[in-house]
Amino acid sequence: MATIPSHHYLRLPHPINQKTQHSLSLKPHSTHITTFQTMRAISRTNDEASVSSRVEPESYELTTAEHIRRRDSDAKESKSLRDTWRKIQGEDNWAGLLDPMDPVLRSELIRYGEMAQACYDAFDFDPFSRYCGSCRFTRRHLFESLGIIDSGYEVARYLYATSNINLPNFFSKSRWSKVWSKNANWMGYVAVSDDEEASRPRLGRRDIAIAWRGTVTRLEWIADLKDFLKPVSGNGIRCPDPAVKVESGFLDLYTDKDTSCKFSKFSAREQILTEVKRLVERYGDEEGEDLSITVTGHSLGGALAVLSAYDVAEMGLNRTRKGKVIPVTAFTYGGPRVGNIRFKERIEGLGVKVLRVVNEHDVVAKSPGLFLNESAPHALMKLAGGLPWCYCHVGEKLPLDHQNSPFLKPTVDLSTAHNLEALLHLLDGYHGKGQRFVLSSGRDPALVNKASDFLKDHFMVPPYWRQDANKGMVKNTDGRWIQPDRIRAEDHHAPDIHLLLTQLHHPS
Amino acid sequence: MATIPSHHYLRLPHPINQKTQHSLSLKPHSTHITTFQTMRAISRTNDEASVSSRVEPESYELTTAEHIRRRDSDAKESKSLRDTWRKIQGEDNWAGLLDPMDPVLRSELIRYGEMAQACYDAFDFDPFSRYCGSCRFTRRHLFESLGIIDSGYEVARYLYATSNINLPNFFSKSRWSKVWSKNANWMGYVAVSDDEEASRPRLGRRDIAIAWRGTVTRLEWIADLKDFLKPVSGNGIRCPDPAVKVESGFLDLYTDKDTSCKFSKFSAREQILTEVKRLVERYGDEEGEDLSITVTGHSLGGALAVLSAYDVAEMGLNRTRKGKVIPVTAFTYGGPRVGNIRFKERIEGLGVKVLRVVNEHDVVAKSPGLFLNESAPHALMKLAGGLPWCYCHVGEKLPLDHQNSPFLKPTVDLSTAHNLEALLHLLDGYHGKGQRFVLSSGRDPALVNKASDFLKDHFMVPPYWRQDANKGMVKNTDGRWIQPDRIRAEDHHAPDIHLLLTQLHHPS
Repeated sequence: MATIPSHHYLRLPHPINQKTQHSLSLKPHSTHITTFQTMRAISRTNDEASVSSRVEPESYELTTAEHIRRRDSDAKESKSLRDTWRKIQGEDNWAGLLDPMDPVLRSELIRYGEMAQACYDAFDFDPFSRYCGSCRFTRRHLFESLGIIDSGYEVARYLYATSNINLPNFFSKSRWSKVWSKNANWMGYVAVSDDEEASRPRLGRRDIAIAWRGTVTRLEWIADLKDFLKPVSGNGIRCPDPAVKVESGFLDLYTDKDTSCKFSKFSAREQILTEVKRLVERYGDEEGEDLSITVTGHSLGGALAVLSAYDVAEMGLNRTRKGKVIPVTAFTYGGPRVGNIRFKERIEGLGVKVLRVVNEHDVVAKSPGLFLNESAPHALMKLAGGLPWCYCHVGEKLPLDHQNSPFLKPTVDLSTAHNLEALLHLLDGYHGKGQRFVLSSGRDPALVNKASDFLKDHFMVPPYWRQDANKGMVKNTDGRWIQPDRIRAEDHHAPDIHLLLTQLHHPS
Repeated sequence: MATIPSHHYLRLPHPINQKTQHSLSLKPHSTHITTFQTMRAISRTNDEASVSSRVEPESYELTTAEHIRRRDSDAKESKSLRDTWRKIQGEDNWAGLLDPMDPVLRSELIRYGEMAQACYDAFDFDPFSRYCGSCRFTRRHLFESLGIIDSGYEVARYLYATSNINLPNFFSKSRWSKVWSKNANWMGYVAVSDDEEASRPRLGRRDIAIAWRGTVTRLEWIADLKDFLKPVSGNGIRCPDPAVKVESGFLDLYTDKDTSCKFSKFSAREQILTEVKRLVERYGDEEGEDLSITVTGHSLGGALAVLSAYDVAEMGLNRTRKGKVIPVTAFTYGGPRVGNIRFKERIEGLGVKVLRVVNEHDVVAKSPGLFLNESAPHALMKLAGGLPWCYCHVGEKLPLDHQNSPFLKPTVDLSTAHNLEALLHLLDGYHGKGQRFVLSSGRDPALVNKASDFLKDHFMVPPYWRQDANKGMVKNTDGRWIQPDRIRAEDHHAPDIHLLLTQLHHPS
């Protein structure tokens, strides 16, 4: 009764993957399949799909024949990614893939979006937890703890940052005095696709994925942005041009450290660069594999994704010892502007590809630089380039509109319009400009309400339903209710960062 | 680290029961033992116990010797209840048992309080659940679903009432349109102690227990009370004296029905009376067992407990066919006044024993009748007896004070001071007027914060920590997130009520 059917909004370029049908998966093409075993596939031509009439979803079934047809189609599309992954990663700036929407790209955008979503789902937001601000799960069990079975990735490192005065409203802090860390917050992870048959042949390469956590509900941090552009070289990023500037809050968050804290005694920047270097040396130099570096993030995490993707390229970490260039791509979701026009020119000149998925009603994607930005005449931008508040988006934009989804309330508040799960839902139904909203995979729309009140009421999905049993309290063997210990050494163990840092600064 | 130790506030009249140490249990004397396997018992004379110095709780251990000593003591006290249960049920109006506090009575008060607490823990308060207002668990699995293993009771019937205009703020209603019932709310249950060795020999008799749900956080219903006394005979209760009156909201809630609803086509009154009649006939008339009838409830549930205990006696259901009288007892927690002085005289004249456990800071226990009540001169009460707002408490009162517990914040809001789990915690530490607060059993103080923010911050127990994983949403076999179906026929199946009602009105 409370299941959301998808009958009339559904078509199925992506088939059922039997192995993963009962769980989420980060594998390409099987990502959303988990939720739609019972859907009836509806054949639909492009013309049919563009019909704009709205029919409320009904119940549905999946016939065996459709089941098999989709499995075959799955195999075909899987091959497709293997052959086309460089284009999907933006080799040609996604020319011809966005309108009409390429089904493989759509699936990949949802997959990487889910890697960013995992940062929210795993984060401890509860100020009454003594682990507030940490990841709720150990590194080795992150995906499976989130119900993402057989993800095809291993988490190589957790990322931490230390709170800084520029973004006081971004950091989550415990109300208690005895806590896991006074100032650090878990910020995401570096993962690498694994050796399993299921993974590499699908991806077509070894993927190093970096996911940054952003902020879901509290948008106060936007107001905190100082709107102040700062040269990246001022914070130690190796850029020869002092005119390349990014917003100071993002930059500080990326480079600040706290030597008294074992989680943030190295900056997020140092954590990420050393880990990327290690993985490139291992899989690129030693194994000679094809590699990709994909950075993903929502909201403020989108800004960090762009900044860190740029840094990786600026540091030359996307080159193997033999000089082979590794494509660097940032997929961002509801990301704000990051830097000035010189930053845009620099990052694009370095070959970093950025695709920004945005809900047109999301104010974050218009910040900072609401008044003077890339839509101003180019000459004016150039002229104003030296001003501290002259921002510019980078890369390509994929504009979505939540008012096109018949599942969502048309009018919502700003933080709801900014929701990542909603963006993934919008991606799933997007087929191109002016095309009718039709779910491609049947990715469960109920996920939208995990941390929002966005679904229309008649679907009867509780708002903000994602929560832990008993706020994580468990009965111990003595029968007492406690918050169990959580932080393990493996999550912040970083014996190799010192050595790798030396190598970074003095490349052999 | 987040475990609440009880070192200095602990003494141990109640020992470890090995069988139940890892779970709550409704069995006498093993009720709270579950939570204190690791405590170090502190020998303490009465003099020592009365020392009023405050020492903050520390960590503790339990030695094997103490373990064994307590187990022996458990056996002794178990025997004690078997022999003294009539006094514990109030045969002598608890003379000499309240100050100093009798340890067996204390344990029984906590045990029956937990039966009332179970009504809250099992109730679906979530307005975004389509089962809002129902019990989250099926009747046969109520206790085990709440983690109360080996309770010693079987739930014989669920109780439902229909919303009435007098108490609009008491009933929980779903926001959705498709719901399990438009107007009914689950109100509690009738249970009967089982045959197992563990149960009857401990209790000394077969116990018919009736638990009424009240309201935890929302106190608006107090304002709803019309402060209007109504003759009980006006609503069909068989009382020869029209001057016996109770508050009209309580009375209507108890007697209203909705013939269009399968859950409340019989009134709560009819549900309870027929079930008590059936159980008395089965165990009293047929088996010839010793019986007790114990009614328990918190808050508004306390009012219903008093009213229904009275009704059972007024209807003569507490007599076996051979004329043997079955003791009827109401243990209430934070209960309001129910009726006028004539009601008090009537219920006490019928031999119903009422013990009211109250926090002195709880305003509910002073309602209705804040200005004219039993503390007025008797002559004035008699004189004002005919007034519609002249209320009178019944039975004995056990006054507690949350400011005596070193675990609790001294200053809290009204609904917090009214909390049932806090009352059970206060009971556990109570030894008599002016005596130092020392936990008797080590019942986990963390339970206090299940649905309140009452514990002092340094214990680091999250406030309002009792919640379901994902608001009860589960992934179905198709991988979609749904609210599972819940209501089963067994929960409202009442084939025998018609017949039993006929017998009630025309006793053979």
